[in-house]
Amino acid sequence: MMARRTGRRPGNPNTRQAILAAARTAFAERGFDAASIRGIATAAGVDPALVHHYFGTKEELFRATMEVPIDPAQLLPGVLAGGREGVGERLVRTFLDVWDSPAGTPAVALLRSAVNNEWTARLMREFLVTQVLRRVLDHLDIDPAELPLRGSLVATQMLGLAMTRYVVRLEPVASADPETLAAAIGPTVQRYLTGDVSA
Amino acid sequence: MMARRTGRRPGNPNTRQAILAAARTAFAERGFDAASIRGIATAAGVDPALVHHYFGTKEELFRATMEVPIDPAQLLPGVLAGGREGVGERLVRTFLDVWDSPAGTPAVALLRSAVNNEWTARLMREFLVTQVLRRVLDHLDIDPAELPLRGSLVATQMLGLAMTRYVVRLEPVASADPETLAAAIGPTVQRYLTGDVSA
Repeated sequence: MMARRTGRRPGNPNTRQAILAAARTAFAERGFDAASIRGIATAAGVDPALVHHYFGTKEELFRATMEVPIDPAQLLPGVLAGGREGVGERLVRTFLDVWDSPAGTPAVALLRSAVNNEWTARLMREFLVTQVLRRVLDHLDIDPAELPLRGSLVATQMLGLAMTRYVVRLEPVASADPETLAAAIGPTVQRYLTGDVSA
Repeated sequence: MMARRTGRRPGNPNTRQAILAAARTAFAERGFDAASIRGIATAAGVDPALVHHYFGTKEELFRATMEVPIDPAQLLPGVLAGGREGVGERLVRTFLDVWDSPAGTPAVALLRSAVNNEWTARLMREFLVTQVLRRVLDHLDIDPAELPLRGSLVATQMLGLAMTRYVVRLEPVASADPETLAAAIGPTVQRYLTGDVSA
């Protein structure tokens, strides 16, 4: 038998599925912050230690429920490292790198599903807010009162980019190279994050 | 029997449905420009005069196939009347006026459907390009070589706004007043239409 590359065990498939189902319900109904590993374990009829053993942290469990092999915690440091200047363009470029790659296929599937399934839409909203936007905005030291509007404005542009490039496939955005799009759309995201967005 | 308010006859329901089905196929397969009333009539097994009689112009027939009671030809003059300056903000405000109104309900349904149905996605793409973006860009006297990129960049922002406000319903964009959104998002659309978008 080959040595496992990760310390995390795949575990009993039925137990895994029960935990994932309980986690989906908890994250969609209560939101990421209010959901707890303990509550999810109780709902799945298992010990909390088993949830950690199979899935790791609450963030990792959340990503597992989304079935998207993208970890914002790994990707975002590269986006944020350069500080405020140019962060919009780096965010667009990183987003396209990931969504153009094989990891993007389940992300597009998730986007399609969120459109027709309120449950998935809620999970996606929670994921966007707690795993992506919150990290970006915290790092950029933005006035907390402005966080929600700035975050959801960024979401309008990034969701629309994903829809236009991968779902509606409107040319030339559908097949433009990432640099062209980062140059055109980066300044929008930059303004939503750090510029003037008030009436 | 009440007097009809319009000169256009509702006609035989089966004939209407046959024409609409033939029109959907033609617009999705061949595109708006290449599709002809004559070809649609032939496919539906009726006289071209009957198509005009029931549905009016090719534009009107296209809108009927989309089942969306929004006529860009009526709305856009108000957006375009003020010229290039502020056109982005007026476009966002008009878009929200329509989509927030009862006429927006079928538009949101169409958006949901386009996400999971390649046929509807093609119709929506054709509608966006030939009925909305082309009119806007023609009027603003934009370099024809730049039309496709500018038009599809506008689409990224407007589709994303629609997705965020009406489908994913991410707050505060979901319930922000139109003026706030027009002020925040208008400058993006303005830059995509008339500003610098190159690398």
